Amino acid sequence: MYIGVDLGGTNIAIGFVNSTGNIEFKREIPTKAFRKPEEIIEDIGNLILNMIRDYGISKKDIKAIGIGIPGLSNQSNGNVIFCVNLHWHDVPLKKILEQKLNIPVFSDNDATVAGLAEYEAGALRGVESGVLITLGTGIGGGIIINGQVYRGANGVASEIGHMVVGENYYDCNCGKNGCLETFASATAIINYAKKLLIESKNNSSILDKINGDLECLNAKIIFDSAKEQDEIALKAVNRLAKYLGVGIVNIINTIDPEVIALGGGVSYAGEYLRSLVEEHVEATKHFKKLPVGKIRLAQLGNEAGIIGAAMLGKYSLK
Amino acid sequence: MYIGVDLGGTNIAIGFVNSTGNIEFKREIPTKAFRKPEEIIEDIGNLILNMIRDYGISKKDIKAIGIGIPGLSNQSNGNVIFCVNLHWHDVPLKKILEQKLNIPVFSDNDATVAGLAEYEAGALRGVESGVLITLGTGIGGGIIINGQVYRGANGVASEIGHMVVGENYYDCNCGKNGCLETFASATAIINYAKKLLIESKNNSSILDKINGDLECLNAKIIFDSAKEQDEIALKAVNRLAKYLGVGIVNIINTIDPEVIALGGGVSYAGEYLRSLVEEHVEATKHFKKLPVGKIRLAQLGNEAGIIGAAMLGKYSLK
Repeated sequence: MYIGVDLGGTNIAIGFVNSTGNIEFKREIPTKAFRKPEEIIEDIGNLILNMIRDYGISKKDIKAIGIGIPGLSNQSNGNVIFCVNLHWHDVPLKKILEQKLNIPVFSDNDATVAGLAEYEAGALRGVESGVLITLGTGIGGGIIINGQVYRGANGVASEIGHMVVGENYYDCNCGKNGCLETFASATAIINYAKKLLIESKNNSSILDKINGDLECLNAKIIFDSAKEQDEIALKAVNRLAKYLGVGIVNIINTIDPEVIALGGGVSYAGEYLRSLVEEHVEATKHFKKLPVGKIRLAQLGNEAGIIGAAMLGKYSLK
Repeated sequence: MYIGVDLGGTNIAIGFVNSTGNIEFKREIPTKAFRKPEEIIEDIGNLILNMIRDYGISKKDIKAIGIGIPGLSNQSNGNVIFCVNLHWHDVPLKKILEQKLNIPVFSDNDATVAGLAEYEAGALRGVESGVLITLGTGIGGGIIINGQVYRGANGVASEIGHMVVGENYYDCNCGKNGCLETFASATAIINYAKKLLIESKNNSSILDKINGDLECLNAKIIFDSAKEQDEIALKAVNRLAKYLGVGIVNIINTIDPEVIALGGGVSYAGEYLRSLVEEHVEATKHFKKLPVGKIRLAQLGNEAGIIGAAMLGKYSLK
């Protein structure tokens, strides 16, 4: 059995995952991110001990603990280099938790870990190379090359959200202009739809759904309205799909992965989104006769965080 | 001994290369690209036989022949899928040449092969992962990952010239807008400098160097003028460096290679270009404290084509 920990800014979800990537037992607690890292890690350790007791197994049955973090890990010593949202810097996560539990601990970026989950048990299963793009508040990426998590020379590969794909009317949080994240994240489509709604002098069915309160706007409402042919929603969705297509073709033109999987909250728009993005990719990719750039929907939803974290242990111990 | 063949649209250069990547003997003939593929391949075979005779070795001393082509190879059967400039489509290059010479034949894209050369004996020596960007008439790329040529799932990886990095005032030959090739190739900087010269009503030292004939403009003249602080040349060079920086940061944000090497004709602008590009990359990369995205000049110049092609044999037989 492997343990997967999905450490988020709001909640910590922990699951017992078997060697084929199925979650057998799961619990969740609030992160309370305002606390010191040591307190949060203590909570994680205690929850794991309680779960082992309640599930009726012993520590010896756990081969490894994997932790997906919203930040960057040092693979050589297991320290968290940083998690912006948790205000963590150089936190010896592996060391503290291994001292407490005496079980091997591994950690990696949450999108990387989600990519590994899709590779083990989801949309990237059976491929030699694949990329998961997580479309949420921001955009993350997880890359598999030669059947292995690909991290790059400094562990900072797959920062796909900050690939420049055009020129945008507002700058990215990172300071650059034109990042994929500012075109194709949930935040981006909400911002753009708001802009269109304000400019359009309130002529859209979106406004009925949110009772005129732009603060209630979310990506689901925009996609739902697009499916009902609302013009503003269609314009916003098409822009997202177009630039996501540019980003995917850029990825293809760099690493030519066998499959690109779309995950994260925005991907819940489902086949409607997938086929729109596919159209843009097919129209602009090179080598149109080759099966380049197959696009699939991610399959594991929220559970990818726990499953991928657990599989981190499995692959690291290989 | 390995034989490397650099098959270009104008000339075919063939070299005998030892196992450490040094060219020991070299000859060149015109391609006469208007001919049938079989005639050109016959010429390559005959030149190799003559060189073996003249160098005083026997066919048994040659371990393999590698060929860098301006197009795409099928790695499973050795066919050339296409070379646009040579009008080749589905040409059984490996089969024909192996039948004639009875020596193992391998082929791959010319930029990929140049990347392998820089990895074996140039700017990428000793790295685990690296990218060569060839800045010529167009832009090509060669990617090394885990000490191996990286080709992608369909053999079409490293088409870096067609990564979209912004919006441009003219479309790329490929039909897209914003390709790196339209910002940072020799063709791109010439086009842009011409545009500036026409708009500026002929006020630039560039015009003296070309006697007012815009058709004589080349990248070297623009870089030379920029080094002399000519305003138009500086504007053109800075634009090239800026967008090349965007492309490099996009590559970093995808695969985080240890080193990025700049090759091709434009790279003969040397340290002046390298340091300008480095400035843009350092200013816009994430993780500024990490040694992410080291930028070097390619070291092998034109010889990269022969050396890399020869090393294709060495690595394929490993």
